[in-house]
Amino acid sequence: MTERRASAQELAALSYAVLTSAGADPDSAEATTGAMLHASLLGVDSHGIRLLPFYADCLRDGICNPKPKITVSHPRRSAVLVDADDGLGHLPTYRAMDEACAIARDTGIGMGVVINSTHFGAAGAYALAAANAGFIGFVTCNSGAFVVPYGGKKPIHGTSPIAMAAPLESRDPYFLDMATSSIPWNKVMRYRTEGLELPPDAALDAEGQYTLDPNMAVCLGPVGGSGFGYKGAALAGLAEVLGAMLTGMRLSIEQEGVVLADTKVGHFVMAIDPSTFVPLAVFNERHAGYLDGFKAEPGIMPAGGPEWAKRIDREAKGIPLAEGLHRELADAADKAKVAFSL
Amino acid sequence: MTERRASAQELAALSYAVLTSAGADPDSAEATTGAMLHASLLGVDSHGIRLLPFYADCLRDGICNPKPKITVSHPRRSAVLVDADDGLGHLPTYRAMDEACAIARDTGIGMGVVINSTHFGAAGAYALAAANAGFIGFVTCNSGAFVVPYGGKKPIHGTSPIAMAAPLESRDPYFLDMATSSIPWNKVMRYRTEGLELPPDAALDAEGQYTLDPNMAVCLGPVGGSGFGYKGAALAGLAEVLGAMLTGMRLSIEQEGVVLADTKVGHFVMAIDPSTFVPLAVFNERHAGYLDGFKAEPGIMPAGGPEWAKRIDREAKGIPLAEGLHRELADAADKAKVAFSL
Repeated sequence: MTERRASAQELAALSYAVLTSAGADPDSAEATTGAMLHASLLGVDSHGIRLLPFYADCLRDGICNPKPKITVSHPRRSAVLVDADDGLGHLPTYRAMDEACAIARDTGIGMGVVINSTHFGAAGAYALAAANAGFIGFVTCNSGAFVVPYGGKKPIHGTSPIAMAAPLESRDPYFLDMATSSIPWNKVMRYRTEGLELPPDAALDAEGQYTLDPNMAVCLGPVGGSGFGYKGAALAGLAEVLGAMLTGMRLSIEQEGVVLADTKVGHFVMAIDPSTFVPLAVFNERHAGYLDGFKAEPGIMPAGGPEWAKRIDREAKGIPLAEGLHRELADAADKAKVAFSL
Repeated sequence: MTERRASAQELAALSYAVLTSAGADPDSAEATTGAMLHASLLGVDSHGIRLLPFYADCLRDGICNPKPKITVSHPRRSAVLVDADDGLGHLPTYRAMDEACAIARDTGIGMGVVINSTHFGAAGAYALAAANAGFIGFVTCNSGAFVVPYGGKKPIHGTSPIAMAAPLESRDPYFLDMATSSIPWNKVMRYRTEGLELPPDAALDAEGQYTLDPNMAVCLGPVGGSGFGYKGAALAGLAEVLGAMLTGMRLSIEQEGVVLADTKVGHFVMAIDPSTFVPLAVFNERHAGYLDGFKAEPGIMPAGGPEWAKRIDREAKGIPLAEGLHRELADAADKAKVAFSL
């Protein structure tokens, strides 16, 4: 049987129709669709189109405000505050990053926070938006407690992501989008379905012991695992500082931990003008030199390399829709009374 | 035999005398001494007073300019550029962070880069300086290539540190200071001396295979090791973006990799005013709530916890001087014709 695939355009049309049918205003539906397609095209399927049914349910169930009145203010010269009014997290975060870039153009660096937000999908979407606009983009946020601290048994941190992208014309740039846990929870779920063993040092059982059995796993461990997990945990702390303390929003331990559906979430974005200290040509030459360093050996790639390879494949052949995902999307369309022809 | 210890004051006096005798101007000697004592007091011995003989040699050998003309300019409203004039890296980095804090007070966020610099010791020293001044401090730089990329056999990245500290009055705050490798090289050296096995997934042999034998190790692996080292490598890439591309200074692969003695190095610092988006009291309450979360289980600590415990011990009892370190300091004093009475 041939693998079923759909083009980004087809999925975007479906997403927009489902989200607006679930009540989303056009701008929110477009931004959420864009962030999901970013992830689907780059192979980050955990944050891709599979989230469409979840977002539609959040809108229908009143977890997200479908027609938020997003407000933007500038409490300081290089800082923008975006109030998401409890809407979907994507539109206000794109907006915060746009404003951060505008500030960076002027002052060299701009930061933005989003308050009263909800799940914003892949952090990398906003970092890459900055890079596409010619800026170094940095994004982080904390998320519901699901990751134990180093040496601990009970979750304190979320899988709290850190993302960064650097601009480079006519070439795929440095691009980082990582969870501060070793693996995402949906990998545990997938390994359960497929009957596979987990990688070591990634997930813990109810006794707080690292386990290889996905059926025994109840939470995750920080990057670095049993040996060096204090580093991953410290990076998750960075996400708490910028995502919760700076914004006044909820700490990971205060969030439900109910998968993805947390509210009163904060996000942090930052943009830096790469030509602040050196001419852009120098930045570009340094950037290209860094990427070229990875030609020294076969099989190694800079951060972003695997994503760019996926994008080429998926732009050409479409985004794979496994049987389960296809069914979930069909159900979501049905629920929204939207035609489904993928 | 009782362990030999010396007070921070005694070590600072020795350091200042040795560095000025080696030619350093008073400001440089004071800043370098301060950064080393920061590390020694917090138990980060790899970057503590053991570096004194190395810095003195760098001054005498002409690797560092002993009397640099440090210049400070503001190319953009929220950006400061500090030219270290090839001097020791500590003074210009403290200066850059001071300026970044002053900018953050005004615009919410300030960034600084240091160019034409050399080794700056523990990145955490400057992040903590910002926190002590009431700001969130962030510091990174790249360093000589000594760490293989994920799946690779040849070093591309340095142990390139990332440091962050958040302010909190009357309580030890969140504090991160990590290498993007699993372990520092001096741990390999120490394990050789002590005849111990290395932790798994930390160092590689000349064939590019992870090894437990410190005598076979020739370079290091990224945080995350053989399973998830793409995350550590991506974080080292972040240090390249901010430490080399943004500053126009040398990439890790362009640096000698000769231990610590690289020149034309760039550093990046950033300060954020914690009261930009919320009243300081809210930031402090969030920060304290985060730290309190670690009381849920015995034995777990937030980032910085181990360092604060060391500081209490060392402020009370002095900084331990193992036999080898004591001898190295005595030799350094002798070389500088400085009295030694530790």
